[in-house]
Amino acid sequence: MLPKSRYKLIASLQQKKYRTKNGLFVAEGLKVINELIRSRYKLSYICTTVVDDLDFNADEIFEITDAELRKISFLKTPNKALAVFEIPQEAKIDTKGLTLVLDDVRDPGNLGTIIRLCDWFGIKQLVCSDNTVDCYNPKVVQATMGSIARVDVIYTNLPQFLEAESRPIYASVMNGESIYKGDLPEDAILIMGNEANGISSEIQQKSTHLVTIPRFGKLQQTESLNVAMATSILLNEFRRP
Amino acid sequence: MLPKSRYKLIASLQQKKYRTKNGLFVAEGLKVINELIRSRYKLSYICTTVVDDLDFNADEIFEITDAELRKISFLKTPNKALAVFEIPQEAKIDTKGLTLVLDDVRDPGNLGTIIRLCDWFGIKQLVCSDNTVDCYNPKVVQATMGSIARVDVIYTNLPQFLEAESRPIYASVMNGESIYKGDLPEDAILIMGNEANGISSEIQQKSTHLVTIPRFGKLQQTESLNVAMATSILLNEFRRP
Repeated sequence: MLPKSRYKLIASLQQKKYRTKNGLFVAEGLKVINELIRSRYKLSYICTTVVDDLDFNADEIFEITDAELRKISFLKTPNKALAVFEIPQEAKIDTKGLTLVLDDVRDPGNLGTIIRLCDWFGIKQLVCSDNTVDCYNPKVVQATMGSIARVDVIYTNLPQFLEAESRPIYASVMNGESIYKGDLPEDAILIMGNEANGISSEIQQKSTHLVTIPRFGKLQQTESLNVAMATSILLNEFRRP
Repeated sequence: MLPKSRYKLIASLQQKKYRTKNGLFVAEGLKVINELIRSRYKLSYICTTVVDDLDFNADEIFEITDAELRKISFLKTPNKALAVFEIPQEAKIDTKGLTLVLDDVRDPGNLGTIIRLCDWFGIKQLVCSDNTVDCYNPKVVQATMGSIARVDVIYTNLPQFLEAESRPIYASVMNGESIYKGDLPEDAILIMGNEANGISSEIQQKSTHLVTIPRFGKLQQTESLNVAMATSILLNEFRRP
């Protein structure tokens, strides 16, 4: 049985305001919960319909029914367990290697996919503008499929951060130089922009390189690439041997 | 006013059975509808709340209210117009250039994104196994953002099709050779597999090359790439100069 006060708290964690106030966020499903537990994240408590299947210890475990899980879950199809984790202190930004930067990405699915791409490409830090969607938004956490356990997401004032950077700064824009031209450095910043407006002109001005994925479809009306697709192609370009 | 019989017909077009029976499918929103009209697709009729904004002719235009649009729309947020188009005859498969092949991709969002990628990379034909999700599924049509107007999607018996192919056949698998090794030909088949099971062993056996995107994240537990992400990276590898 889950105490009533917890019901209310869990429901409140759908909103960023209450996540920040309580320093807590929600993850669902045994796979995602397991990956978070095996990383730097500290479990606060877990509510599950399958207590006997847990292969980890937790100070507080609440055995709940399917009906209770449906009541607290943020998912259309609840998945055996919902856990509340502490939001960790933000990491310090590395000054070496490849760092991905997001300028106001707003869609939770896109951020989740991009975190998964960072994990795939071995990029440990993702730096986001303050207006980028919150990585502890439950839709983002689920879309990462557990990858958020291995990628530090850091929110910061982007112009200030870029001012202090000594690495080359690549901004992904519509009319830049072809990404296929020239060698890409190992130590670099790559910036991706907002779904509708791209990268702000302030941020573009602080960049050292404006780059573009050339369009192969010759027709004018060809859609632009979605930001997650463009990120996968650009990260591949930086990482390929 | 939309006749009652049309309400029923439009609702039925959510199901593949009735799309096939009537040879019709639904597209929503002026942007997508406009792109289809400017392509090989034949408009059957259009229902819209903004008759005066249409910049094309149609034999049958029904002016409807917002409430009526909400009633017939398949979208959470209906968007000014819903059109019914005729499903065209399937194109013949080209025997030159790069052809993308899908072996049982099931998620409408993934298929929609992959059609968008074909459009971006100038790939005119997408060949799908008979069990791949229907490209006229309304979720697929919307996810293509209009790109379906410029990409032929052809459903066929894959083993038979591959048997008759003379181009090299690249299958995207988990443990193949690195896609970064060696040159990729201009004339080729690239096969992507099902979200859960990958490419069937029957299809793998008919392939001439098994290829893999090497994982850069060194940790064992790193998630595999989603099929749409993997497709964007592999198409980029085939197309990059």
